[in-house]
Amino acid sequence: MTTTRLTKLLEPLQTSGWDALTLNPSPSLTYLTGLHFHLSERPVVAIFTADHAPVIVLPELEMLKLNGLPYEITAFPYPENPAEWDGVFRRAVQSLRLDGKRIGVEPRAMRLLEFRHVKAGAPDADFPDASDVVSRLRVRKDADEIAAMRKAVKVAQSALEATLPLLKVGMSEKELAAELVVQLLRNGSQSEMPFAPIVSGGPNSANPHASPSERRLQPGDLLVVDWGACVDGYISDLTRTFAVREVEAEYRKIHQIVLEANAAGRAAAKPGVPCANVDKAAREVIEKAGYGLYFTHRTGHGIGMEGHEEPYMRGDNMQLLEPGMAFTVEPGIYLPGSNGVRIEDNVVITEDGAECLSYMLRELRVVG
Amino acid sequence: MTTTRLTKLLEPLQTSGWDALTLNPSPSLTYLTGLHFHLSERPVVAIFTADHAPVIVLPELEMLKLNGLPYEITAFPYPENPAEWDGVFRRAVQSLRLDGKRIGVEPRAMRLLEFRHVKAGAPDADFPDASDVVSRLRVRKDADEIAAMRKAVKVAQSALEATLPLLKVGMSEKELAAELVVQLLRNGSQSEMPFAPIVSGGPNSANPHASPSERRLQPGDLLVVDWGACVDGYISDLTRTFAVREVEAEYRKIHQIVLEANAAGRAAAKPGVPCANVDKAAREVIEKAGYGLYFTHRTGHGIGMEGHEEPYMRGDNMQLLEPGMAFTVEPGIYLPGSNGVRIEDNVVITEDGAECLSYMLRELRVVG
Repeated sequence: MTTTRLTKLLEPLQTSGWDALTLNPSPSLTYLTGLHFHLSERPVVAIFTADHAPVIVLPELEMLKLNGLPYEITAFPYPENPAEWDGVFRRAVQSLRLDGKRIGVEPRAMRLLEFRHVKAGAPDADFPDASDVVSRLRVRKDADEIAAMRKAVKVAQSALEATLPLLKVGMSEKELAAELVVQLLRNGSQSEMPFAPIVSGGPNSANPHASPSERRLQPGDLLVVDWGACVDGYISDLTRTFAVREVEAEYRKIHQIVLEANAAGRAAAKPGVPCANVDKAAREVIEKAGYGLYFTHRTGHGIGMEGHEEPYMRGDNMQLLEPGMAFTVEPGIYLPGSNGVRIEDNVVITEDGAECLSYMLRELRVVG
Repeated sequence: MTTTRLTKLLEPLQTSGWDALTLNPSPSLTYLTGLHFHLSERPVVAIFTADHAPVIVLPELEMLKLNGLPYEITAFPYPENPAEWDGVFRRAVQSLRLDGKRIGVEPRAMRLLEFRHVKAGAPDADFPDASDVVSRLRVRKDADEIAAMRKAVKVAQSALEATLPLLKVGMSEKELAAELVVQLLRNGSQSEMPFAPIVSGGPNSANPHASPSERRLQPGDLLVVDWGACVDGYISDLTRTFAVREVEAEYRKIHQIVLEANAAGRAAAKPGVPCANVDKAAREVIEKAGYGLYFTHRTGHGIGMEGHEEPYMRGDNMQLLEPGMAFTVEPGIYLPGSNGVRIEDNVVITEDGAECLSYMLRELRVVG
């Protein structure tokens, strides 16, 4: 599969206006090469051109990772002493004669650490943003990728179902989050998860990006759980909102509105329509109900190897949906200083519509 | 504490040859400001100068994080539409009149995503590498930081002790790693851990950076477990090597050599000596035993908020150890295609020597 993916690069290398693509450790690097490196203080860079085997600069102690690759790669390993790294990088970049050329980069992944080493070997090169082209290669998921995401959804759902019976009034958000992570692992998630679960109760639920705190669950809280699993390198990203015992009528009302917005967003997803339509469909429900000001973020983001990737469900994004695109639909209402609701599902575009990979009950469940 | 830390920046801002420091989401940003952001496709940048309150550019939906900060900060929030981000960044950078000035960066953390936005607001600025100065601020741990690291060591040790009774011949490396992560969480680690445990048996143990695989533990394997916990934002990073039932005499021999190298490295650690001495002391033991070629990495790295930070225990590093510096001592012997050993402890320099925070049994234990 990876050999096929490397050949996917040939067309953009000939038509995108750049002569090479350089990647540091990132999902795109793993997608194209099958190689996985951690971001660390030791720079790793791969450079792809149309005419040569890929070049990789890496620490000597990572060389074993190249054993048995199903394609040719030219390695420039460097020793432990950082004083020697720049020379190795220069030789690698110069071997491809890239000075004065256009070398595509992914600004969201590439650090100055790697970039400056590459630039030292090609000081007069341009470094155009290749993100759109590279994400274009990754955006239509194949059957294997969708199968992995389906598993990641299943693992996440089972993990939360296994956690809910343990949820009690008086438990802290952190305790609940730790238990959920345990259940994610027990149910089959890889240990390197895409993000730490958000478990936020009461006023914290009104912060869409809250981190689990020491606050203890109280009767009357809304409880937002935003969690996901990782299976075979692909992730799920779901949210459900619960009522801790009896909650105010307005909280039940905003939950119902978000539930309808979530359904409307999912219903709008099909091939050939702009991403904006998904956002608009969900947002319209919330605006009509008078809570438009309190839906403070976009309706969704792409998922795959990353928690956030293309395509983005924003009102200004006219990118057309295509079969194989996978993303979240996650409208919310956040009442500042009060409580919040979000309901998030994972959707993949099919030939004639969309399939929702997640199916855990969305209606307001009473817990605790 | 954080206000004190911000004042630590004043001296380098006046003497280090740069007019400002710019940071993206990173441990240094958290250390200085107490703020924690995830790296995402939404850029976040803080800029510090001697004359103004810190400036931060961030997504509108992250603004709640600034509530209740114990110091003044000037926020430039941007909306969801990426087309508007550059304008907000320009206004933020221009508000500090930094064009043509010197703006320090941390190349190991700063991505082109954030860097290009800052540069757009100061196109003629220089961006010198400020890593050494910033890491200098963080390198001497205070009592609170050491207390957190001590807890992180204790949690890690308890977690592995709780995992060992479950270890059986026939278990896969992945299964064992997942169980260890569960025990790390049960024993009190934060769920965002600094690194996924390495669990590598038999030939995989000869790869210092192996990822847990489907390979099942077999009698005769050496088993390397490299793991750590995170408590209050500070980490531990330990390694122990086990014998799965009866192992070859040479494996027992290399374990004994590494054990002595580990002790020699720890014994060499005290204030006023170069980092190189710690590396040399450990390496000499392995070289004298005839295995120098098979100790393929440095002897250690600093730890704290990050898994790898200053100071580095390398033979060429003449940086002097100072009280409060914390690092790993982790010599190893890796016999390619055969088996490997590593023994790693966490050490902190005291006024008159060094304290080893980790105390789990280092001798070769038989498991399975």
